[in-house]
Amino acid sequence: MADRVIARLSRKAGKALCAAGWTVAIGESCTGGGVCEALTKIPGSSAYFLGGVVAYGNRSKTRDLEVPDSRIAGHGAVSEEVAEAMADGARRRFGADVGIGTTGIAGPGGGMPEKPVGTVWIGISTPDVRLSHRYRFRGDREAVRRKTVVRALELLIECLSPREGGIG
Amino acid sequence: MADRVIARLSRKAGKALCAAGWTVAIGESCTGGGVCEALTKIPGSSAYFLGGVVAYGNRSKTRDLEVPDSRIAGHGAVSEEVAEAMADGARRRFGADVGIGTTGIAGPGGGMPEKPVGTVWIGISTPDVRLSHRYRFRGDREAVRRKTVVRALELLIECLSPREGGIG
Repeated sequence: MADRVIARLSRKAGKALCAAGWTVAIGESCTGGGVCEALTKIPGSSAYFLGGVVAYGNRSKTRDLEVPDSRIAGHGAVSEEVAEAMADGARRRFGADVGIGTTGIAGPGGGMPEKPVGTVWIGISTPDVRLSHRYRFRGDREAVRRKTVVRALELLIECLSPREGGIG
Repeated sequence: MADRVIARLSRKAGKALCAAGWTVAIGESCTGGGVCEALTKIPGSSAYFLGGVVAYGNRSKTRDLEVPDSRIAGHGAVSEEVAEAMADGARRRFGADVGIGTTGIAGPGGGMPEKPVGTVWIGISTPDVRLSHRYRFRGDREAVRRKTVVRALELLIECLSPREGGIG
């Protein structure tokens, strides 16, 4: 559980959330709890971390994060539509300002020609925007999961940073 | 996220769950996602890991894990009653054979004379039994969280091991 990059990003995300006065909630699949674990490393994180759902199966995605069945049937559980719906669902369930969703194929099994192992979507939902980014991470299961946690934290920090021309 | 002891215990827990034909679900507070993250390290864990809720606040404990308000009011969120209710709630929500609940004071803040930093309850709920164990872990926040994940995995393995005279 000791990872300096993740610890540093979690601290930075915590500071950005505190500065914005925002709360966060997570709906994670391929990272299996890693995003929540990262954010809660930080003492005092209960001020901004409201909770998360590790929705590993499709049933949990629809029941606990209100991802529409039709979206999973139409696009697959690993898709930008589902990543965004998971982020939205986490945000709603916990009443948070920001929601994050992760869905991907960590491997070693589960790869498909159009969605090989390492394909990951990260969704973010805020009061301003809903967005998703696709990645094709290289490496083994542990590497894919770790890189997804790192990118999720970076995206959270980015979406909390004031910038010209809006967000995303 | 690389921790050899946790990886070894997660593999062992996965094998024991497969051997028993049992599924598992998690309701975690002080470990913040670490138990889910550990179990899902293992390729193929979706066969037995149904999901988890990181219920950091009391509202999530009551809403998402059906921990009775009266139990939190009467015993505090860090108590054997709440650890057992979280294990029960996770088991029910995901329809799993085994539920695990963790609640504790990882620190550095939040300690009380009767419940100092490092006080943790781990609850287990199976078709046979509901039990909770109390620990007073030494060390900093990271150490307390890590030791709780390790003990939760060990308890899961123990409750899956056939033994004379029952379980617990």
